[in-house]
Amino acid sequence: MKRTLIRIEEADDPRIAAYRDIRERDLVGRQGRFVAEGRVVLNVLFSTSRFSAESVFLRENRVDGLADLIEHIPEDVPVYVASGAVMDQIAGFEIHRGILAIGKKPETTGNELLDTLPAQALVVALSGISNHDNMGSIFRNAASFGAAAILLTDDCCDPLYRKAIRVSVGATLKVPFARISDPDALAGALESRGFSILALSPRGGIDIADVERTPRHALLLGSEGHGLSQDVMDRLPTARISMADDFDSLNVAAASAIALHRLWRG
Amino acid sequence: MKRTLIRIEEADDPRIAAYRDIRERDLVGRQGRFVAEGRVVLNVLFSTSRFSAESVFLRENRVDGLADLIEHIPEDVPVYVASGAVMDQIAGFEIHRGILAIGKKPETTGNELLDTLPAQALVVALSGISNHDNMGSIFRNAASFGAAAILLTDDCCDPLYRKAIRVSVGATLKVPFARISDPDALAGALESRGFSILALSPRGGIDIADVERTPRHALLLGSEGHGLSQDVMDRLPTARISMADDFDSLNVAAASAIALHRLWRG
Repeated sequence: MKRTLIRIEEADDPRIAAYRDIRERDLVGRQGRFVAEGRVVLNVLFSTSRFSAESVFLRENRVDGLADLIEHIPEDVPVYVASGAVMDQIAGFEIHRGILAIGKKPETTGNELLDTLPAQALVVALSGISNHDNMGSIFRNAASFGAAAILLTDDCCDPLYRKAIRVSVGATLKVPFARISDPDALAGALESRGFSILALSPRGGIDIADVERTPRHALLLGSEGHGLSQDVMDRLPTARISMADDFDSLNVAAASAIALHRLWRG
Repeated sequence: MKRTLIRIEEADDPRIAAYRDIRERDLVGRQGRFVAEGRVVLNVLFSTSRFSAESVFLRENRVDGLADLIEHIPEDVPVYVASGAVMDQIAGFEIHRGILAIGKKPETTGNELLDTLPAQALVVALSGISNHDNMGSIFRNAASFGAAAILLTDDCCDPLYRKAIRVSVGATLKVPFARISDPDALAGALESRGFSILALSPRGGIDIADVERTPRHALLLGSEGHGLSQDVMDRLPTARISMADDFDSLNVAAASAIALHRLWRG
């Protein structure tokens, strides 16, 4: 059965109001919504995502190549189609890929999320990660190494910002995440549920290669321990990644790849 | 002794012609020159870089905070200073950091570079890496794990493109690199000098964690074996990074971090 596509002829059509001026609106929040973009991300949104979609918006010349994707869009999610000119006018810039969707983000608290985790779980805890590239890359690495959840302090940027979703190739739609106000509260919530927390730092005590995986393990990443109180740092095991000593430390996303690979292997 | 700064009052001053319309000119080549940007990158340029600088161009309000950097600029390299308004007009966009330099890139062939390497060396070989973020990140990881050189096939993007330098935090100025036309020629040049080549691929034969480091080891990274002939692939050892089996494979920069960390540890 062929899917019905809804043709949009005018840029001011109210049915596609959510797509208007996407770039600017990224900066001011979206009232519980996010924008997903590109074939790979929409494939995640309609397969393994924890979020549901409100609508899909396609450039007409992309429709024929997206039959597989369109087949997986639930019947109650409208699929809008427009010419390239109308689409660019609506979005406020040139949408190269011509594949967009609006998703809905429900709110979960960090404690609620932690209460859903199984007895064996690898969790990533992030403090002060403010760059969307790093956020997206860390989620992608977390998905690759089977992390069960990601906890974020309030000063982390939004994993559902358009660029973070894109860089994560959809992992921010898949790996469950929630916020816990600050690093000390985050560490407390993890410890009270039996998680061993490993804080990664260039001056960490143990070489990451020598860390023994525990059933419930949390990897804490920040801007060089950013925001962690001395009290919390003093009681957490810390690990370092050994490297050539005459260069700047690794980017936090690269460090997460190495550490998660180690903890995943156990 | 206080360093002499040369004041630029007019945007059309011929002494700063190399800085004109930086963003557009990135796309069309720079006749053996590159643009370095920001304090961290210029610190590398004037300390551990293999390249020399032609000139430095600073926004006047940054000068006081850069005394340490300015002290390391050789006497024969002119340091120009302008107001923010003049600088932005020259560069063609708003230069947030207000710290720029023009460097000179000498040409070395891949074979010449390989002939300079010591008996123990870790080399990174790249095929078909066309994204400047990935290129910069791979160089940063290579520097972190002591790679002696990076070889690039002709279809790789330029490590001295402005964004690649910035993402690498200056590693593309430091880690020696050169081109060898295509993957087969590259593999041949490495093998003839006693390098064991390990090709990283999601379908690789060995788990990267089980690889034994050899004195001369080369890690070959590409877009899933992109461009390697079946003949070369058949004779190279291949390695994979084990991961959760239900998600997209790792980004090539993240994969390089994990593999280089493994080879660095030996």
